[in-house]
Amino acid sequence: MSNFGERLRQQVLDRSPLCLGIDPSSATLASWERPDNVDGLLYVALTLVEVASAVTGIVKPQVAFFERFGSAGVAALERVIAEASTAGLLVIADAKRGDIGSTNDGYAQAWLSPRSPLSSDALTVSPYLGVTAMESLRHACETFDRGLFVVVASSNPEGQAIQAARDDQGQRVDSALLEQLASLNESTPGVFGAVIGATRHAPQFPLSRLGAPFLVPGVGAQGGTPSDVARLFVGVPTGSVVVNVGRAISDAGPERRAVTDAARRWRDDLVAALL
Amino acid sequence: MSNFGERLRQQVLDRSPLCLGIDPSSATLASWERPDNVDGLLYVALTLVEVASAVTGIVKPQVAFFERFGSAGVAALERVIAEASTAGLLVIADAKRGDIGSTNDGYAQAWLSPRSPLSSDALTVSPYLGVTAMESLRHACETFDRGLFVVVASSNPEGQAIQAARDDQGQRVDSALLEQLASLNESTPGVFGAVIGATRHAPQFPLSRLGAPFLVPGVGAQGGTPSDVARLFVGVPTGSVVVNVGRAISDAGPERRAVTDAARRWRDDLVAALL
Repeated sequence: MSNFGERLRQQVLDRSPLCLGIDPSSATLASWERPDNVDGLLYVALTLVEVASAVTGIVKPQVAFFERFGSAGVAALERVIAEASTAGLLVIADAKRGDIGSTNDGYAQAWLSPRSPLSSDALTVSPYLGVTAMESLRHACETFDRGLFVVVASSNPEGQAIQAARDDQGQRVDSALLEQLASLNESTPGVFGAVIGATRHAPQFPLSRLGAPFLVPGVGAQGGTPSDVARLFVGVPTGSVVVNVGRAISDAGPERRAVTDAARRWRDDLVAALL
Repeated sequence: MSNFGERLRQQVLDRSPLCLGIDPSSATLASWERPDNVDGLLYVALTLVEVASAVTGIVKPQVAFFERFGSAGVAALERVIAEASTAGLLVIADAKRGDIGSTNDGYAQAWLSPRSPLSSDALTVSPYLGVTAMESLRHACETFDRGLFVVVASSNPEGQAIQAARDDQGQRVDSALLEQLASLNESTPGVFGAVIGATRHAPQFPLSRLGAPFLVPGVGAQGGTPSDVARLFVGVPTGSVVVNVGRAISDAGPERRAVTDAARRWRDDLVAALL
């Protein structure tokens, strides 16, 4: 039986571990000499979708940069997701959603149901309200072969206060979360992926036992390298690590050829380090 | 000088501590005998805005239930926010957003800038990536007199694993967060509010020292009562506690009079317990 983890792994093996981050911030639009409005946003985002489909198999639109234009920005995101899916790309919606039980029904309907215009292959979620509160998201993933990426160890330093706190068994929050996700993946394999920043140390829980893919931010503009990723994920099944590169590729714009060349270099470096 | 905390406190003293939760879930639409689409959503949400403006001064739309219809649902939310603001209600967008630094610019533009169609008086945020990573949200709040409600102690039991973990000084995550928010409120007063569920025990850090308002979920359908809230927040400045009641009011529908009567009863009970 297929599941999200297997689908993603096959895509990584067929194409590459590079996930192209679609981050149409005000700053990126300015550097591409495009107006900071929905037209500028769509130009940059759709160009990055085309570049991604020429170079790799996965994209990660950052929802915040679409949401800043309200419903018009969200409509632009719907078009970006549709064009990426039509081009055969897997789409990870980077929304860091997550709430208590009944509210997660709404997020499951929004991001994981195939009937939604925002329907994506996977959704990033934030764990502060508890991953066991995410039953309706889990159920949607199981039904529709979708996945979640739970933020476990973020790439930024400010998250450490919470992520390094210890539970009543003395286990760090990040490590305890991984153990909990691994346990959830025993009943629904491949669903509960984890976000672990390239700039972090390996948590105590063995990464090879997660049973679902990893999404790795922090490579490129934030200073992480493909070799950092290879060291951090040594022993993890080949193809289970997806590395996001955003600004380090889009900053090569606005020339499409320069962006494509930058994406190819990152892809080749990641293939050499991880496959 | 005005700030969000003072604005909210004045509204509570002028009107009441009741925040009417606008939660147009599939289940609520069904119980109101409305179709589970954008029309049904708008009918329920706008009716609740009218009820709120007759009874109290604050509403909290739950963004997940709008987002489930994609950009059309977000456009409906824009209308709900606009009508609530026109009616003189304070709007708390319950979105549980939060990311690393540059991405939070996008969320600040979306929810806090007066130029955004989603512009709200306050936004709920999730702290797992670190509240000190929220500089652009803080800056927007300071510039536009808006506020944040950081989820500290959620009303559901599943969040306990992380919220009760201990940092390297042996302090619980929820208590350490409150201390951090209080410190941030010293430089920008009234900005960093906290979400504390009515069904939780009081964190170790004295709630009276936060320097910003509290938003309290968990009353009504989740079992918390106005007296629970009064006990939990004893000693906190009068008017600084806002209590959300959602389903316990909207479940009295679809008759508008029954919904209004339910809202009045909750308002009167909260006024008696807290003011």
